Amino acid sequence: MVMSMTDVNYRLEKDFLGEKKLPSEAYYGINTVRAVENFPISGVPVHAELISALAEVKKAAALSNMQLGLLPKKIGEAVITAADEIMAGQYRSEFIVDSIQGGAGTSINMNMNEVLANRALEHLGKSKGDYFHCSPNNHVNMSQSTNDAIPTAIRIAAYRLAHELLASFRSLVEGIEEKAKQFDHVIKMGRTHLQDAVPIRLGQEFGAYARVLNRDIVRIERATEGLLKINMGATAVGTGLNAPVEYMDSVVSRLQEQTGIPLALADDLVDATQNTDAYLELSAALKVCAVNISKMCNDIRMMASGPKAGFNELLLPARQPGSSIMPGKVNPVMAEVMNQIAFQVMGNDHTICLACEAGQFELNVMVPVAANNLMHSIKIMKNGMEVFHQNLIQELEANIERCRHYVDTSYGIITALNPHLGYDVASRLVKEAQQTGQSVEEIILEKGLLTEEQIAVILDPYHMTSPGIAGEQFLLNQ
Amino acid sequence: MVMSMTDVNYRLEKDFLGEKKLPSEAYYGINTVRAVENFPISGVPVHAELISALAEVKKAAALSNMQLGLLPKKIGEAVITAADEIMAGQYRSEFIVDSIQGGAGTSINMNMNEVLANRALEHLGKSKGDYFHCSPNNHVNMSQSTNDAIPTAIRIAAYRLAHELLASFRSLVEGIEEKAKQFDHVIKMGRTHLQDAVPIRLGQEFGAYARVLNRDIVRIERATEGLLKINMGATAVGTGLNAPVEYMDSVVSRLQEQTGIPLALADDLVDATQNTDAYLELSAALKVCAVNISKMCNDIRMMASGPKAGFNELLLPARQPGSSIMPGKVNPVMAEVMNQIAFQVMGNDHTICLACEAGQFELNVMVPVAANNLMHSIKIMKNGMEVFHQNLIQELEANIERCRHYVDTSYGIITALNPHLGYDVASRLVKEAQQTGQSVEEIILEKGLLTEEQIAVILDPYHMTSPGIAGEQFLLNQ
Amino acid sequence: MVMSMTDVNYRLEKDFLGEKKLPSEAYYGINTVRAVENFPISGVPVHAELISALAEVKKAAALSNMQLGLLPKKIGEAVITAADEIMAGQYRSEFIVDSIQGGAGTSINMNMNEVLANRALEHLGKSKGDYFHCSPNNHVNMSQSTNDAIPTAIRIAAYRLAHELLASFRSLVEGIEEKAKQFDHVIKMGRTHLQDAVPIRLGQEFGAYARVLNRDIVRIERATEGLLKINMGATAVGTGLNAPVEYMDSVVSRLQEQTGIPLALADDLVDATQNTDAYLELSAALKVCAVNISKMCNDIRMMASGPKAGFNELLLPARQPGSSIMPGKVNPVMAEVMNQIAFQVMGNDHTICLACEAGQFELNVMVPVAANNLMHSIKIMKNGMEVFHQNLIQELEANIERCRHYVDTSYGIITALNPHLGYDVASRLVKEAQQTGQSVEEIILEKGLLTEEQIAVILDPYHMTSPGIAGEQFLLNQ
Amino acid sequence: MVMSMTDVNYRLEKDFLGEKKLPSEAYYGINTVRAVENFPISGVPVHAELISALAEVKKAAALSNMQLGLLPKKIGEAVITAADEIMAGQYRSEFIVDSIQGGAGTSINMNMNEVLANRALEHLGKSKGDYFHCSPNNHVNMSQSTNDAIPTAIRIAAYRLAHELLASFRSLVEGIEEKAKQFDHVIKMGRTHLQDAVPIRLGQEFGAYARVLNRDIVRIERATEGLLKINMGATAVGTGLNAPVEYMDSVVSRLQEQTGIPLALADDLVDATQNTDAYLELSAALKVCAVNISKMCNDIRMMASGPKAGFNELLLPARQPGSSIMPGKVNPVMAEVMNQIAFQVMGNDHTICLACEAGQFELNVMVPVAANNLMHSIKIMKNGMEVFHQNLIQELEANIERCRHYVDTSYGIITALNPHLGYDVASRLVKEAQQTGQSVEEIILEKGLLTEEQIAVILDPYHMTSPGIAGEQFLLNQ
Repeated sequence: MVMSMTDVNYRLEKDFLGEKKLPSEAYYGINTVRAVENFPISGVPVHAELISALAEVKKAAALSNMQLGLLPKKIGEAVITAADEIMAGQYRSEFIVDSIQGGAGTSINMNMNEVLANRALEHLGKSKGDYFHCSPNNHVNMSQSTNDAIPTAIRIAAYRLAHELLASFRSLVEGIEEKAKQFDHVIKMGRTHLQDAVPIRLGQEFGAYARVLNRDIVRIERATEGLLKINMGATAVGTGLNAPVEYMDSVVSRLQEQTGIPLALADDLVDATQNTDAYLELSAALKVCAVNISKMCNDIRMMASGPKAGFNELLLPARQPGSSIMPGKVNPVMAEVMNQIAFQVMGNDHTICLACEAGQFELNVMVPVAANNLMHSIKIMKNGMEVFHQNLIQELEANIERCRHYVDTSYGIITALNPHLGYDVASRLVKEAQQTGQSVEEIILEKGLLTEEQIAVILDPYHMTSPGIAGEQFLLNQ
Repeated sequence: MVMSMTDVNYRLEKDFLGEKKLPSEAYYGINTVRAVENFPISGVPVHAELISALAEVKKAAALSNMQLGLLPKKIGEAVITAADEIMAGQYRSEFIVDSIQGGAGTSINMNMNEVLANRALEHLGKSKGDYFHCSPNNHVNMSQSTNDAIPTAIRIAAYRLAHELLASFRSLVEGIEEKAKQFDHVIKMGRTHLQDAVPIRLGQEFGAYARVLNRDIVRIERATEGLLKINMGATAVGTGLNAPVEYMDSVVSRLQEQTGIPLALADDLVDATQNTDAYLELSAALKVCAVNISKMCNDIRMMASGPKAGFNELLLPARQPGSSIMPGKVNPVMAEVMNQIAFQVMGNDHTICLACEAGQFELNVMVPVAANNLMHSIKIMKNGMEVFHQNLIQELEANIERCRHYVDTSYGIITALNPHLGYDVASRLVKEAQQTGQSVEEIILEKGLLTEEQIAVILDPYHMTSPGIAGEQFLLNQ
Repeated sequence: MVMSMTDVNYRLEKDFLGEKKLPSEAYYGINTVRAVENFPISGVPVHAELISALAEVKKAAALSNMQLGLLPKKIGEAVITAADEIMAGQYRSEFIVDSIQGGAGTSINMNMNEVLANRALEHLGKSKGDYFHCSPNNHVNMSQSTNDAIPTAIRIAAYRLAHELLASFRSLVEGIEEKAKQFDHVIKMGRTHLQDAVPIRLGQEFGAYARVLNRDIVRIERATEGLLKINMGATAVGTGLNAPVEYMDSVVSRLQEQTGIPLALADDLVDATQNTDAYLELSAALKVCAVNISKMCNDIRMMASGPKAGFNELLLPARQPGSSIMPGKVNPVMAEVMNQIAFQVMGNDHTICLACEAGQFELNVMVPVAANNLMHSIKIMKNGMEVFHQNLIQELEANIERCRHYVDTSYGIITALNPHLGYDVASRLVKEAQQTGQSVEEIILEKGLLTEEQIAVILDPYHMTSPGIAGEQFLLNQ
Repeated sequence: MVMSMTDVNYRLEKDFLGEKKLPSEAYYGINTVRAVENFPISGVPVHAELISALAEVKKAAALSNMQLGLLPKKIGEAVITAADEIMAGQYRSEFIVDSIQGGAGTSINMNMNEVLANRALEHLGKSKGDYFHCSPNNHVNMSQSTNDAIPTAIRIAAYRLAHELLASFRSLVEGIEEKAKQFDHVIKMGRTHLQDAVPIRLGQEFGAYARVLNRDIVRIERATEGLLKINMGATAVGTGLNAPVEYMDSVVSRLQEQTGIPLALADDLVDATQNTDAYLELSAALKVCAVNISKMCNDIRMMASGPKAGFNELLLPARQPGSSIMPGKVNPVMAEVMNQIAFQVMGNDHTICLACEAGQFELNVMVPVAANNLMHSIKIMKNGMEVFHQNLIQELEANIERCRHYVDTSYGIITALNPHLGYDVASRLVKEAQQTGQSVEEIILEKGLLTEEQIAVILDPYHMTSPGIAGEQFLLNQ
């Protein structure tokens, strides 16, 4: 805990509200301590990727400020060295503010400013807290505001995470496409309303899963584009007050170089500072994807149901004993976890919408919870897709005999008789078959409606999985 | 359209914003016309039950105002007669404002005030629009504000609708309980993770549905209690400005008598005017119920899946041909429509939450959309439950043979061997059975693990549906 | 009620479940009656635009079937004439099935098939119900299934409605852009955290509203593209069973011509039949827009708050008396109704997600509730935007003096001193000003920190609304 | 990472799917390792309170099994000692499965079973992994299933957390009630539609906040009652297979004693095993509370807006510098963080609903994500309420002069003239005052409508905050 310290091991820091004791070894400062006192909410720290991105922002700002002659070179270089250390993963335990915090990100921004200032002071051979030589506000935060630095860092972090997700997502979809090929010959009953419909190939089903997920990939990709417009130089309300005009393009160029992401300055910084539609759009794309994934997982779990009292059409790799009590039980745990991830993403989207709707005037102060949920959604989807791919899709097998058995015993194939006998006659045949237990073929032959040869052509299930009317048609109304 | 009229067939009305032409036969007035111009949003009128309840509020207020000597008897009686007519279903086409409206209900309140005033004027032998003799604001709305009259009317309407829902709900649950009895002897495989688990009776499953729904009934009932506290006399902001002290108790007593609902004056009218938690609480109870109903309908649809390529454990009454193309297909349409109702109720709850969160200071101006969604949710749940009961539950039958067949062929029953042979031995037996195709019984006998008599006792599926270890236990570690 | 009829005024119709009496004048048939009995849910009929689109689908199918020689010319022409009548708005009272219905749209599809068949029979000089000469299933529904006809009709209807919305939306945004120009010179206090921040121009704020809404326009437009891929010929499960191969391209071309919409056959009909991501994507885009609109309306309502006890920066047109009790009160009713529309759209999106997630295998049976909510969302947004534009934006005025007054009395302008005096000195100045009541300028002069000329340049509020550091900078650390 | 180990430092464990190397010092076993491989999803471990509750369940089960002679005393005692250690907070780093996991909690149940077995083996002087002497499945999990142990543990954990929340909540509400008393004399303008309405006292507003939150306390308390019904002995599907009849009551009594919570065996274990309405109900109550809290925080943030360009009616304690760029700025960060907590709770409720709706047949496999979100919601609400109380409410002050100033300058007080002059006259007075800049009082006197004495009585703002008509009424229509 930051507050327990003996009298010798601390330094004093002041702000316009008073003073605080800091552990002398702490790189964070008084603003951080105030934030820790104010927001002991979730116990979950700010996302690591956001810390990295924020350090990158600070580095780019320092470089630009140095270039413009605003920031003395010695100080700037010390800040940059410190920022590089953070980006390399060092000093992460100094970022102690909660991921849910009031103040639109001021606390995590100041936590970063303080850590960088104090680490820079060490590089300058000064003591921590000696902010005259390197100040969190005047030097590290120079030409910036929470209201431009934080949204920029969120965008960089979310963009990177989203593209990591997309890489995993593409692998998953390729895996599903391979299954679509592998299962292309597996004929099975199509189901509508969970009722036997007409034959389909298992490969067609997996092809459809791959297609909708490919659209999700495009949607997510497209949604990340909104993140590319950043508002560095907007300062407090987007007007750019106190930010030199040359600074804006300079800092954006530097960030572009540093990150390798095609960032650009937003056309309208007032807009870019107050509006959060880029987060909303990405979250909405994730949510649509979550719905599609969840539907697919539901199908897979149902097709794998059984083995005896269920569909038993798919054979899932056994990943873990399914029960602490039922011997030999294996459950579709990988699909279940994907469903849960989908539910979390859908709930997170709700939180993000609420937070974004609550923005007021020049700033959305609810951004911390929105950003945290957005990054959480991306991360769990990525993680889930990877294990779902490896642990379920890759080893998935079809129960070919079982699939075929359903086709051979179902009435749904009778649909193929419509163009030949009409819907009403076909309906009566189904009813008669259900009542007598006779096969439809038998009844048709008995009644002399079609010949055996005609039946063989018309009721061939493989043909039924492609467009067209099988055989020469017995036209209606003749 | 209210605006097209020849020069002779209109009357002029004025307010502090200007004047408007009204069709001379119209009972509504200038405020209504302005609202119609402002809010051509959904095309859905205000709920009929809310119109009735609002007329009742106006009647009670008129009676109290007369009693207190505030409202001249002649005028008051004319207003009451008009209110009785509205309550009897007359003049409903005069209520033309949209159910989604700005202004916290001012528009529907004024629509009512104007219709009542003009109809009262007719009763008084005066012309419509002659508001000196009976004014929408001064007489009909006397001692009231939109901010007390509308919330009170919403509460009465929602309470009544909710109790109609509860009556239908109780019938449905009784129907399910009857099925639980009817199916008590039907032994089937229990399923966890959609995988074969251990035997259960179909009656136990329907019993569980009935139990959770009975809790929903209690939750909804309890949630309606919050509606009983009304804020008549609160006037504009809950302070009761301009409402005589005697008026409050008087008007609440009258409303209680008129409606037969145990209404009471809220302890704190400021609270009761600004807070909408009563709607939230009822909607939340409906939503919890919707989740439970949806889960049950999902189960029923899966149990009815097939007939050949599905579980085929339940036989649903055929309500309509299931397909425009597939002959003889019958779908679980009644369960499907209940799922959809559940989804609508869950979405409506979201809208209600958003509207309630957006309240500010002394009033929640978003109440129209909240109230409309609440009443819609109650109504569709009631309607859905009635047809779900009649058209599905009442004629539902079990496929007893199919249910039993699954039990006889599943490995799940092996769980009953755990207390006798241990989890690890039982697991190996399942694996061996799966690999060899032998029955578990055969393998046990072959290995001499249990005698035939022991097997008969231990693996009796009916016994497995009740607590306890069947047979004398072969204790572990002996 | 459809069921009450004397013995002479009815005809009998049969299906494989039994027979039903129909009013002899009814164009709908037995399937419709069953649906009405099964689904008396919401009382809200199927959306008019969907009825039109479905008639168009039937017409295109009939043309293609005729061309392919599947449908006799005489019958086909009668069906087409009937479809044209429906499209022209006739016989709309014959569409009596509820908008919330089980069966994935089978009921509305059959309602259409029956109305067209019976009207066609009249054109053919036959009696209603004489389905030998024109059958709802065999002729009107020829080469179709509910599962292709209904999704296609929904897409056409939603596409059209969305483009009507976009037209209204573009007008609204143009209106906001005009206000941005009009208000470009109005200097006011920017607010972050609802606290006084630094100066901004009202035009910049309206410019930011216009920008985010322009992105919403792009998002909605883009989302409508998913609707262009239709699945005509998919029949029951997307495999195209019973649909001649030539039929598919033919029917899509005809629909394209008839509607003027650039429709195309989906690449994968199995995918297009089971997946509903096109609805999800459009609803998500509407939801993002709703969030942005709601935020803007919140701002506008706050800026219009007062007139005395609020911000009073914006002067809204008085649209209706705001209170039934408070004289002269005018409320921001147009903004309030937009907020409520936004909440409804957000709740509807939730319902749509739930419905889409519940799809199973080859079909999503929950489509009726999803489609209904989607069309409702589009419609109320369009209607809302039009009146919000006309009744609020167009006549909106700024309270220029009040806006300026806030700037002149606020401490926020001190931020402009940072580059000259440093953050800590500036903070102390604010504190001193707050405690002493002195103006910041006075204190600065007193302390000799800056000259009067420097102050005039640095603290010029208009300059503060653009990027840059005002005046020659007193560099820190010198 | 659990998988990297040299050849000497591991032990081998087997299950029916194969074998795994375990670090020899690990207390967890093969099931845990499989779960870690399968579910590297969120990086967030299972909630500490759930670990404690699950250990308690294991202890109670062991005691009951010993008492019934099922579990050898030596083994049972070792298990109990191990469970006590876990409850005391030891060995927590051994619980390494992710909080989002497939399998309905099997993984965390087995993680616990394995840790307890291995720790018990140490107590028995045996090696870890020597499961013959103490088996995770046969001994630790004896008479249990994941499907009863996990729901029971979740209920205990959620109940405890909820009652901790309630304690903090009661303190907060007491704090608000104190403010209601303190502010009872502070007269201010009431606002409806954000427009000036009529006078109210600030204490009345805080009283209303306290009242609705008191109802939330009752709702949450009541909702926790559903958690008291547990399903120990239900085993796999609620039928109690393999659980001795005496065991059920025994284990529930022991849990009751151990926890001090009035737990009871559910009347219907099938119901209690498959239904999750207890979680839904509690989450719904939290959500309703979140909406109410958020509304209050919105009000507080608006009342604290300014200081110059806002309402400036409330003076919030300065908790931290509000800006990294704007000197002296102080933001309502404690209210902002409560809003964000509310949004998270509302989003979590959505996830919980989705998870609960997805239950199927005898079990809800989505429980891990539901339970995790529920516990997270409770925890952040509790934490938030505590700091909101300490850091905002306790030091909150009213800006009495500013509040009064608004009353003295507003037109809203004119409402009090209605009973004396009528609504129309009063409306005209407002209009005239607005146009001329004259005060309403002046105009009334000028026009001779009322005397100065009458005005003094009628327009006294303090009187306006209570029910009643001030002064002798000038009756209308006289």
